[in-house]
Amino acid sequence: MIYPKIPLAQTVVQLCKAKNIKHVIISPGSRNAPLTIGFSNDNFFKCYSIVDERCAAFFALGIAQQLQEPTAVVCTSGSALLNYYPAIAEAFYSNIPLVILSADRPKHLIGIGDGQTINQKNVFANHILYAANLKLDIKDENNIPVDEELPILKNLEDKLERFLGLQKGIQAYNEGEINSAVNHAIVEKGPVHINVPFDEPLYDVVETLSVSPKASDIQFRPKTIDAYELQECLEYWNAATKKMILVGVNYPNEIEQKWLDELAEDDSVIVFTETTSNLQHDSFFPSIDQIIAPLSPDEQKQLQPDILLTFGGLIVSKKIKALLRKYQPKQHWHVGEKMANDTFFCLNKHIEVAPDQFFESFLKKQTHYVKSDYKDVWLAKKQYRIERHRAYLKKLPFSDFKVFDLLLKSVPNNSILHLSNSSAIRYMQLFSCNKTVQVYCNRGTSGIDGSTATAIGCSVVNKKQTVFITGDLSFFYDSNALWNNYTPKNFRIIVVNNQGGGIFRILPGHKNTENFETYFETHHQLTAEHLCKMYGYKYNKASSEDGLKKTLKSFYLNDEESPKLLEVFTPRELNDEVLLGYFDFLK
Amino acid sequence: MIYPKIPLAQTVVQLCKAKNIKHVIISPGSRNAPLTIGFSNDNFFKCYSIVDERCAAFFALGIAQQLQEPTAVVCTSGSALLNYYPAIAEAFYSNIPLVILSADRPKHLIGIGDGQTINQKNVFANHILYAANLKLDIKDENNIPVDEELPILKNLEDKLERFLGLQKGIQAYNEGEINSAVNHAIVEKGPVHINVPFDEPLYDVVETLSVSPKASDIQFRPKTIDAYELQECLEYWNAATKKMILVGVNYPNEIEQKWLDELAEDDSVIVFTETTSNLQHDSFFPSIDQIIAPLSPDEQKQLQPDILLTFGGLIVSKKIKALLRKYQPKQHWHVGEKMANDTFFCLNKHIEVAPDQFFESFLKKQTHYVKSDYKDVWLAKKQYRIERHRAYLKKLPFSDFKVFDLLLKSVPNNSILHLSNSSAIRYMQLFSCNKTVQVYCNRGTSGIDGSTATAIGCSVVNKKQTVFITGDLSFFYDSNALWNNYTPKNFRIIVVNNQGGGIFRILPGHKNTENFETYFETHHQLTAEHLCKMYGYKYNKASSEDGLKKTLKSFYLNDEESPKLLEVFTPRELNDEVLLGYFDFLK
Repeated sequence: MIYPKIPLAQTVVQLCKAKNIKHVIISPGSRNAPLTIGFSNDNFFKCYSIVDERCAAFFALGIAQQLQEPTAVVCTSGSALLNYYPAIAEAFYSNIPLVILSADRPKHLIGIGDGQTINQKNVFANHILYAANLKLDIKDENNIPVDEELPILKNLEDKLERFLGLQKGIQAYNEGEINSAVNHAIVEKGPVHINVPFDEPLYDVVETLSVSPKASDIQFRPKTIDAYELQECLEYWNAATKKMILVGVNYPNEIEQKWLDELAEDDSVIVFTETTSNLQHDSFFPSIDQIIAPLSPDEQKQLQPDILLTFGGLIVSKKIKALLRKYQPKQHWHVGEKMANDTFFCLNKHIEVAPDQFFESFLKKQTHYVKSDYKDVWLAKKQYRIERHRAYLKKLPFSDFKVFDLLLKSVPNNSILHLSNSSAIRYMQLFSCNKTVQVYCNRGTSGIDGSTATAIGCSVVNKKQTVFITGDLSFFYDSNALWNNYTPKNFRIIVVNNQGGGIFRILPGHKNTENFETYFETHHQLTAEHLCKMYGYKYNKASSEDGLKKTLKSFYLNDEESPKLLEVFTPRELNDEVLLGYFDFLK
Repeated sequence: MIYPKIPLAQTVVQLCKAKNIKHVIISPGSRNAPLTIGFSNDNFFKCYSIVDERCAAFFALGIAQQLQEPTAVVCTSGSALLNYYPAIAEAFYSNIPLVILSADRPKHLIGIGDGQTINQKNVFANHILYAANLKLDIKDENNIPVDEELPILKNLEDKLERFLGLQKGIQAYNEGEINSAVNHAIVEKGPVHINVPFDEPLYDVVETLSVSPKASDIQFRPKTIDAYELQECLEYWNAATKKMILVGVNYPNEIEQKWLDELAEDDSVIVFTETTSNLQHDSFFPSIDQIIAPLSPDEQKQLQPDILLTFGGLIVSKKIKALLRKYQPKQHWHVGEKMANDTFFCLNKHIEVAPDQFFESFLKKQTHYVKSDYKDVWLAKKQYRIERHRAYLKKLPFSDFKVFDLLLKSVPNNSILHLSNSSAIRYMQLFSCNKTVQVYCNRGTSGIDGSTATAIGCSVVNKKQTVFITGDLSFFYDSNALWNNYTPKNFRIIVVNNQGGGIFRILPGHKNTENFETYFETHHQLTAEHLCKMYGYKYNKASSEDGLKKTLKSFYLNDEESPKLLEVFTPRELNDEVLLGYFDFLK
């Protein structure tokens, strides 16, 4: 077996292995050669080579999100690692474990005018769980860091002893820092940065390891619910007739079905979900905006809950946020191990356990039946809206709205659906989703950057078929994501191309001025066809309902040797009217 | 005239105008709508719409580099601004004035789970000259920031007075911060960040300004050279027989010709320049590596100067850095208004004035003739190397080396040459450059990201023809740069496509293993042809010497309605042999 000669590189690689980091995404460079040699010569790791670090990090994010295990990205020194930042911020807000390994120059070669050298230490400070800045290995006496004792020691043996002591100290420090960083990524679920200085020569290899670093155990401190707090919750709960549960971004199968069933049966409870909640029940309310967009102020007040219980990550619907900020619940409790957002400015309790653990203590025998018509009133409203929704779709011309309906119906059973920001994820909230489909979207920062690379990362580690639906701006933004040699041939991209940022047309402003088209809509006439040729995707297109239906018939089939892309062209100037008309029609 | 209704947006726009920021690059978004409305409705500004913020910032960098005036980029909140970071770091190390305007949510809407919201305050801390975090306008009493006095005041008039006072205070604070930031960008030449919070509604407009912010003057403190220091320099200088001047990245026409002539005539002085030094003289040494790569240790020692005088930015040649670190000068002085890099670990003096100002005091009558053969010895060596260089080229097969020779000879007189990192800029150092051509390269961080967008930025504000020569990895990395509606039709791109990171083949390592090809060379079979079709470039290609010569004949002509791209395919596995053979042959 071949190892990098530099002990620090061995230490990093061996600890990643001990910590069970299996997927490593490497971007080319020279300073990171010791790490590249280490990872790529050990079959324990599945390595990927991706040139654009922005895509590399989102690709890693897509992998880590599926596996819920830390995934590593490795880059050279300099501006390379700054390109990781958008994905790091997404990982930070979406609680996805990402281990950033940046090679660096030795400290004495930073800030003296060498190439590819920036101030890497703690550069992601605003959005990182842990930043480890490792120390250079000591190779000989000339390379010893500032130490006041050493020059004073006259005796050679004393010097040697002191030198070995320093070496051990540095090794111990580095091992401790790597362990801490990776443990933070695992326990707190998020991005950590390990900055690794290497001195030349960088390419030397050896056949035996010179270090044997120890992986430190993770200190789990299982949290429990405070008995007093639980009792207080129960008293509120059993006295309230209007309880709303609002679920944000949530992993599939994270909540036990029995709790969902119990909540669904409670007459005083309504459960609002989004496609990214990955929770399904006939009695839940999966299309929030469909319900609340047409509500009068009086009706909004009628929806106002006594208790709002939230779990999961960020909420997509702006309308429910606005409603609950205006008509605040008396009690807002957030259940979840990580931070609780005070999204409605009335957070009363943060119950710091997993939702299942909370339901186990809370629902199991402790709550009792409360007479209420809260659920029934809104279920009736829901039913009416669904009928209006269907009626509207019947009379609809070919448009974004129509297309999303057709697409969502076409997504194969048991596939994974990735959505880009921002119009794709927003449209999807208006439709009910196939219950066998798992849904993901980068809602941590809700950026249009990196959605494609994230979806491809997902497709690589999941046997299920991954389908990615994206708007055109988001797709072209992340075009480098297609520069990826690992994409499985069952991967599918659907670009809904309305020639610009169609979502801006819905906002107030002067729509048909040149100024609007240039700076808000950013109108363009690009198509995905050339990118498909360039990166080996089978290209399909549609610009009518019949054409789309016909294409969708064979689109998901595994009948080609390459992944496929379907580009659906919609009428740019009609889409906003259709959407605004929809909310009117729902009333 | 139309203005954004929000006073803070008016303040930002009016101060940018007062500070003469003319070019504004806008990326689409909603939170930044007040700024977009403000900039795009005022004809004083030349606005550009660019979707990918990474490209937008490098494009702005290319403009600011040419004009040597601050250029603004404007983006929405969230991960959008993180995509600016690679260009910000480049601006920081290359001393290019860039004004980053990021829209943000109001403070009370940050960290509560809203979309497109990150921790923007001071997010570029490691690489920014100034970070202004502006405060939200006060619109009414409910919107007043934390102020302990207000609730205590019972009297309505007192409240109103206090409220108006707070409003004035915030307006004054914001004006002061904007002024400080822009002044830092102008005086210290580099990137500054102004974070601007806006509350909804974002799209309202008015017809008259409600603010009249004042631009504060910049305090110039012209520096002078200390008389004692100058005297000391003179004593060293007049006693030394071996003086080396080494010039880093330097703007064209920055140094007066008379000083260059004087230095060129001095027998005890040799002047080492790089293509990015933009300094030409027959007696200078423009191809550093050609001179020093074949030197024996004895010859290297012979080159060791008594005095090393440096000016300009970063040095490309790794070989001269290694030589001068080994054979350090007795004196190293750096002349320049900004920071001095201790590149050779022996910096004695940093003379903090512009080079011209130094030469004015120093060379003008104060230095005297010193008998020396330093220059003549090395001029003879240079002459010999030039002959060997020519002989080598004669016998050369088609390869990167040959191609760079042909390309450099083809670049039209009086054009601007932009080079990408890393092989393009390194190869170029081995050839002498047309004296009428100005040369630029992003050497601040030496990243492969953003070179194309920078070159396009240059082409937009310069009447001269801009020619951009790039390697394939750097070109594909920045492919989104071509998504740009402002590129003049005389702009030219030449991609030297050796199907991967050819430069890695020159480094030690196992070249012909799959591992090497995947993770270091990152071998690919992409071509620029599809991108040309997608973005409306006229595509040309060549894969032989004759083909290349033929294509180059008409390549620079203004005979097409679109910019042109020439892709030159070179033999991947031959290039490194040719280059290594060159250094052997020079001996």
